[in-house]
Amino acid sequence: MAHGKIYLFPSLLSPDTVEAVIPRRNIDLIKGVKYFVVEELRTARRFLKQCDRSIVIDELHFDVLNEHTPGQDVEAMLVPALEGHDIGVISEAGCPAVADPGADLVAAAQRKGIEVVPLVGPSSILLALMASGFNGQSFAFLGYLPLEGAKRAAALKEMERNIRQHRQTQIFIETPYRNGRLISELSSKLPGDMLLCVACDITGQNESIITRPLRQWRSHADDYGKVPAIFLLYN
Amino acid sequence: MAHGKIYLFPSLLSPDTVEAVIPRRNIDLIKGVKYFVVEELRTARRFLKQCDRSIVIDELHFDVLNEHTPGQDVEAMLVPALEGHDIGVISEAGCPAVADPGADLVAAAQRKGIEVVPLVGPSSILLALMASGFNGQSFAFLGYLPLEGAKRAAALKEMERNIRQHRQTQIFIETPYRNGRLISELSSKLPGDMLLCVACDITGQNESIITRPLRQWRSHADDYGKVPAIFLLYN
Repeated sequence: MAHGKIYLFPSLLSPDTVEAVIPRRNIDLIKGVKYFVVEELRTARRFLKQCDRSIVIDELHFDVLNEHTPGQDVEAMLVPALEGHDIGVISEAGCPAVADPGADLVAAAQRKGIEVVPLVGPSSILLALMASGFNGQSFAFLGYLPLEGAKRAAALKEMERNIRQHRQTQIFIETPYRNGRLISELSSKLPGDMLLCVACDITGQNESIITRPLRQWRSHADDYGKVPAIFLLYN
Repeated sequence: MAHGKIYLFPSLLSPDTVEAVIPRRNIDLIKGVKYFVVEELRTARRFLKQCDRSIVIDELHFDVLNEHTPGQDVEAMLVPALEGHDIGVISEAGCPAVADPGADLVAAAQRKGIEVVPLVGPSSILLALMASGFNGQSFAFLGYLPLEGAKRAAALKEMERNIRQHRQTQIFIETPYRNGRLISELSSKLPGDMLLCVACDITGQNESIITRPLRQWRSHADDYGKVPAIFLLYN
């Protein structure tokens, strides 16, 4: 019997934006899938209903894969695919397996020779990079910067080096309540002519993606309150 | 008068895939835009027709921005936006301003305070990363590896170091006729247990995204002939 496939279904970054960010093919495919591996049950169910109101949630099988899932439980989630059923992967926001535990499931599928099909959808990293005006021929996504003082100082130095030596755009995130502190810190510790792009509410009603030299950001440190944002540095 | 906006319209990676990779909102927006900055006239016109057959190409204004465009010509392409008209940016394949000269136009728009709106669409980098099973919390896109011997050896060493020390997925591309040579080279110069993912014809009929240890790739160096592919390394 042929294996099922693993479909990676991107979900929304902002509420009520299915038409804005999800291609038609994703909707057609998701309606045929009965087995799902999801990061968060509630958001996955809501997303499925937004994709197509005719989807009957109670007829679907859900496994939850999040940061608390023991590593040894992941392979068992592939059993439906080994038995010939397609599996849909849905993360809490954006593209599965980019910054969530879905990558472990995909890695296990690749080891077993199960076909993995990535579908198009919103990625805050990629959308922010496009709109920043920064180098997209060379870039790095670093996740969160280290918190501990010496390690954080070293991370800033390494970002500066990678920008100067490799012309590499540096992309990272921060816990939202620290946005203001981060912007102040970057403004005071890195050269004033270095460019910072701050992107928030991407694909949403209040989308804002602004690039300025760090010296101009000093007076804007408090513009972002506690909203999730993504940060990009370049020169 | 309010400025127009710069809309970044992703185009197709594979022919006849508008329904598969382009969300509805992009089509609705592109029908209202009269001024375009495109990387290649012929592919942009064909893409517009595929988005909506009712678009009348002869009523649209096109500026071409490619690797031969002098840097000083870029700002003038923003004049329609300064005069209140929206501008659409379309690159030859995939997401504008990621690996093409559109980034210069976006940078100029950011300097002038013109709003830049990135739209969702296919990115071979992101789709390959999703399906690789590799770390998406930390990754780098390097473009092409250097060709010159000593620089190339140093680039391989640095990739290995970034994988081991920073758990950072390394993503790069190669001129298609060199695919086989690259796979052989990686297999012989990097540890056999390191994982290589090769992705080709992403979103197309013959999409293939396969992750294997390098020691298993040795016998598959010639699988890819001259097709455009993207390469990812991780451990």
